[in-house]
Amino acid sequence: MDLQKIKSPTDIQSMTVGELSVLCDDLRSALLERLSIRGGHIGPNLGMVEATVALHYVFDSPADKIVFDVSHQCYVHKMLTGRMQAFTNPDEYGTVSGFTSPAESPHDLFTIGHTSTAASLASGLAKARDIRGERYNVIAVVGDGSLSGGEAFEGLDYGATLGSNFIVVINDNDMSIAPNHGGIYDNLRLLRQTDGQAECNLFKAMGYKYLYVAYGNDVRSLVDAFLSVKDSDSPVVVHICTQKGKGYAPAEAHKESFHFGAPFDLRTGEPLHISEQQNYATIFRDHMLDAMERNPEVAVITAGTPGVLGFGPAERAQAGQRFIDVGIAEQDAVAMAAGMAKGGMRPVFGVVSSFLQRSYDQLSQDVSINGMPVVLNIFHGSVFAMNDVTHLGWFDTALVSNIPGWVCLAPTCKQEYLAMLDWAMGQKKHPVAIKLPGGAVVESRRSFPTDYSELNRSEVTRHGSKVAIIGAGTFFRTAEEAADILADSGANATVINPRFLSGLDIALLDELKANHVLTVTVEDGVLSGGFGEKVAAYYGRSAMRVACYGLPKEFRDRFNASELVKECRMTAGQIASDILGMLGAHS
Amino acid sequence: MDLQKIKSPTDIQSMTVGELSVLCDDLRSALLERLSIRGGHIGPNLGMVEATVALHYVFDSPADKIVFDVSHQCYVHKMLTGRMQAFTNPDEYGTVSGFTSPAESPHDLFTIGHTSTAASLASGLAKARDIRGERYNVIAVVGDGSLSGGEAFEGLDYGATLGSNFIVVINDNDMSIAPNHGGIYDNLRLLRQTDGQAECNLFKAMGYKYLYVAYGNDVRSLVDAFLSVKDSDSPVVVHICTQKGKGYAPAEAHKESFHFGAPFDLRTGEPLHISEQQNYATIFRDHMLDAMERNPEVAVITAGTPGVLGFGPAERAQAGQRFIDVGIAEQDAVAMAAGMAKGGMRPVFGVVSSFLQRSYDQLSQDVSINGMPVVLNIFHGSVFAMNDVTHLGWFDTALVSNIPGWVCLAPTCKQEYLAMLDWAMGQKKHPVAIKLPGGAVVESRRSFPTDYSELNRSEVTRHGSKVAIIGAGTFFRTAEEAADILADSGANATVINPRFLSGLDIALLDELKANHVLTVTVEDGVLSGGFGEKVAAYYGRSAMRVACYGLPKEFRDRFNASELVKECRMTAGQIASDILGMLGAHS
Repeated sequence: MDLQKIKSPTDIQSMTVGELSVLCDDLRSALLERLSIRGGHIGPNLGMVEATVALHYVFDSPADKIVFDVSHQCYVHKMLTGRMQAFTNPDEYGTVSGFTSPAESPHDLFTIGHTSTAASLASGLAKARDIRGERYNVIAVVGDGSLSGGEAFEGLDYGATLGSNFIVVINDNDMSIAPNHGGIYDNLRLLRQTDGQAECNLFKAMGYKYLYVAYGNDVRSLVDAFLSVKDSDSPVVVHICTQKGKGYAPAEAHKESFHFGAPFDLRTGEPLHISEQQNYATIFRDHMLDAMERNPEVAVITAGTPGVLGFGPAERAQAGQRFIDVGIAEQDAVAMAAGMAKGGMRPVFGVVSSFLQRSYDQLSQDVSINGMPVVLNIFHGSVFAMNDVTHLGWFDTALVSNIPGWVCLAPTCKQEYLAMLDWAMGQKKHPVAIKLPGGAVVESRRSFPTDYSELNRSEVTRHGSKVAIIGAGTFFRTAEEAADILADSGANATVINPRFLSGLDIALLDELKANHVLTVTVEDGVLSGGFGEKVAAYYGRSAMRVACYGLPKEFRDRFNASELVKECRMTAGQIASDILGMLGAHS
Repeated sequence: MDLQKIKSPTDIQSMTVGELSVLCDDLRSALLERLSIRGGHIGPNLGMVEATVALHYVFDSPADKIVFDVSHQCYVHKMLTGRMQAFTNPDEYGTVSGFTSPAESPHDLFTIGHTSTAASLASGLAKARDIRGERYNVIAVVGDGSLSGGEAFEGLDYGATLGSNFIVVINDNDMSIAPNHGGIYDNLRLLRQTDGQAECNLFKAMGYKYLYVAYGNDVRSLVDAFLSVKDSDSPVVVHICTQKGKGYAPAEAHKESFHFGAPFDLRTGEPLHISEQQNYATIFRDHMLDAMERNPEVAVITAGTPGVLGFGPAERAQAGQRFIDVGIAEQDAVAMAAGMAKGGMRPVFGVVSSFLQRSYDQLSQDVSINGMPVVLNIFHGSVFAMNDVTHLGWFDTALVSNIPGWVCLAPTCKQEYLAMLDWAMGQKKHPVAIKLPGGAVVESRRSFPTDYSELNRSEVTRHGSKVAIIGAGTFFRTAEEAADILADSGANATVINPRFLSGLDIALLDELKANHVLTVTVEDGVLSGGFGEKVAAYYGRSAMRVACYGLPKEFRDRFNASELVKECRMTAGQIASDILGMLGAHS
């Protein structure tokens, strides 16, 4: 079939169901080719080929509104809605994002990248439609893995009361990113085992009509099911059973490792490039396995992303009941950690910076107000981490460090990180958030204290005068390099590793006043609400000048990190040059 | 019965069940007396008398761990656990808080004030117990109203997988603060109608064993039920049906108005004091009813607190389908608002400052990244609002204003508020958060612009020199008063209403440099991550001195607002005096 002829969903709506099957095969082949070359969300997209084709065959997008949860399974949707070239022409692979994006197409309703949002967003569309007296179908497509998130439940719960057209397609592949965790998954299993006939039915209990599709990779079954709910005048769940990784043996066999992957050999499924570099996932994992060995109170928590923490099936088995995956449920992960700490354990929640946002209230209420010594290990909290607009790692400091009680630490290298992690696990006084540095793992021969209980005490690594550069976390090395450059110009800068992002070393800041006129801060996070502003505010009443470097309060999508750093004048050379300018102006 | 003899739960454990009934009557009478004099959470506590007695009769607190969700229903628990005097002796009424508090008693496991947290916290205790090989019962007591919150669902979902003792008491009084909203409430109704026998059962679908207690205000039924699940070796839900306001006719008849109330006449149920003062709830309500009349696209959303927005049953009926109560589900409220905006509506979410915290991720991802013009109307975001540690109104600015895209407005009076609200509803470019001022409603005869689309443009209300005072929201009047005091000392201060908290009026700040040496900021929020720090950072590279006034990054409980304001040196007199000191030091 000539895929290039498909410019919009109308181009498939005149096909026979038999032709749709051929189309699915051809789409899957093209998809696999692209995935093997470029990587991406492999399993989710292979599993959704037939369902996506059937949705666009039955419904009339964009008049009908299809909202994909997480939207990492939207590749075939993009292929069918005017973006085929981005999947068939290697030169154009980079022209689309990995998620739905209204900037690309009117068929994409929202920019989505976090899980569990589709039911709420779609129920808002349905509510607006009803109030305005319009008529169209609203369809939320939600994976079983996303169901464990509280927002999904809230959205489904309210959506059930709409009393009008609201179609929820539950794409059940019996997997989250990793295996599912949660009581509801037993019910999904029961429904699969009874061909959807079991009386005890989560979706019916939430108020939905219910339709079961056993063969969610059979396009005919799907078309029939979607036709039967099209224009439904009440909320209905269509529970379709699909196979994650469908049609590609390695992905079918290794669902977890093929959830998201880098380029691979299409013949064998083996990754094309194996990195020999250290990374913080394995460093964390190895260290925590040791820590659990030494201390029976230590436990590790993940909210559905064990791979981010370096824990594969073998390490999870090794850790046993002390490796806890609550499913995609960050609120529960944080609150449960508070409960575990109260019960005498030392829980360490490993979490992606961008997903930590989902637990602000729990960080504040359940943990901090209760003084629970929960440890957060924040991955990907850096300009050098993920660059999708929905997964930016710049906002964690402004989020956590302004909540009373939290001790936020920014290690500058592997050795300091592990020292801080050990201290955090060893004390019971504070909740502690450790923000991993970004970029390649940095090793250091400096020696690091084992005790950080004297809060907010910074480390002066170089004593100079006139200008002090405070380089936090990732950007400590930048501060050192800027000082090196300044030294070449005869300026002797003080260099400081602040260690703490949640408070200031007042004694040191006061001391600097004696023989410094300028303090520069550099941090791996948004300036607004960040660390530098606190330094500036502290010095506000004094004669000290302060220049803050950090990231802008903006959402950027698929940016080049090095270029963004330059744009923010955060390279060592730029900072050194700015400092010389400022010292000159003030001298 | 002599209630004073009850010093701990052991004092009731030797009673007969008949004696427990008498005890319940006496506890309820004492409780009513106190509630009528002091106010508080009336309905929830009256409904939970028997269940609380039965819990402490059957279980052995604090060895067994009882976690009350929201914990506003904990009054009888406090009476039975060594704090009887605080409920029987008017002189000691003030000695306990309205929520569980570990500082008061080892029977109180956590400081809790937000809903939907108990299942997660309790499952953490249970998990810690299992890992440590300990043996005790863990009981989460969760009201039906709290079930709509995503954190409750996440906690129940994971808790079901514990495979060990985990007892969830669902206190079903068929009410949230106001009537419940959500599909699950049809299932609860079905269970009540079938005496718990319906096969389609939300809790069984989540993996729980299930026990139904039809008469949740009958202490014998409760004792039998709790005895049957005590030491259970698997997760179980005990669904008890109670009557909100039980035993007090006005509270039984008017469940919503008696959820929480001020002192009332015990004989009639009428409030003792009727305030004639204006308040922002009725101002908002009246304005929105008008706005809905004028504009068919406008809709109002609440997450279970219609009373906070001034909307009683009559006004809800008047607004019809455009007043939307999603239940206690702030994540859904925000994400659904994004969906409604996409669908062509102008949704205004009215929310308590402290509860807004529960939707950070939705504010960022669903709303701002998608550029949806959702309007937030933030109530109780002030040092002069609620003073329970779990309900502080100081953190909203640091939360919302550091998220890209949000326009945060701080009106200084009623007239400016309504102008800003109208502008926010009339434009489609930005998500807008309006933080209501605290304290008594301030009227102003100044005229206010109708258009705020030129972002971050401040208002200079008094032109002076040397010192500029930027007074945001509630504290604009303080800035004016400080300027008045300074005028008496011959200093002529510039006074600025910043209007916007999410960005700076750079042109104005630059202009001030010409003839000002000091800029003072005063805001109704935490300094850390707040507005003042942004001003300080902007001026950091210049000679301008900056002094920021605001609230500390601390959790305070039941403080006196005026004293806290003094402690922060935020009175007009203190600020004026500080300014004179600073001007003197620098002159």
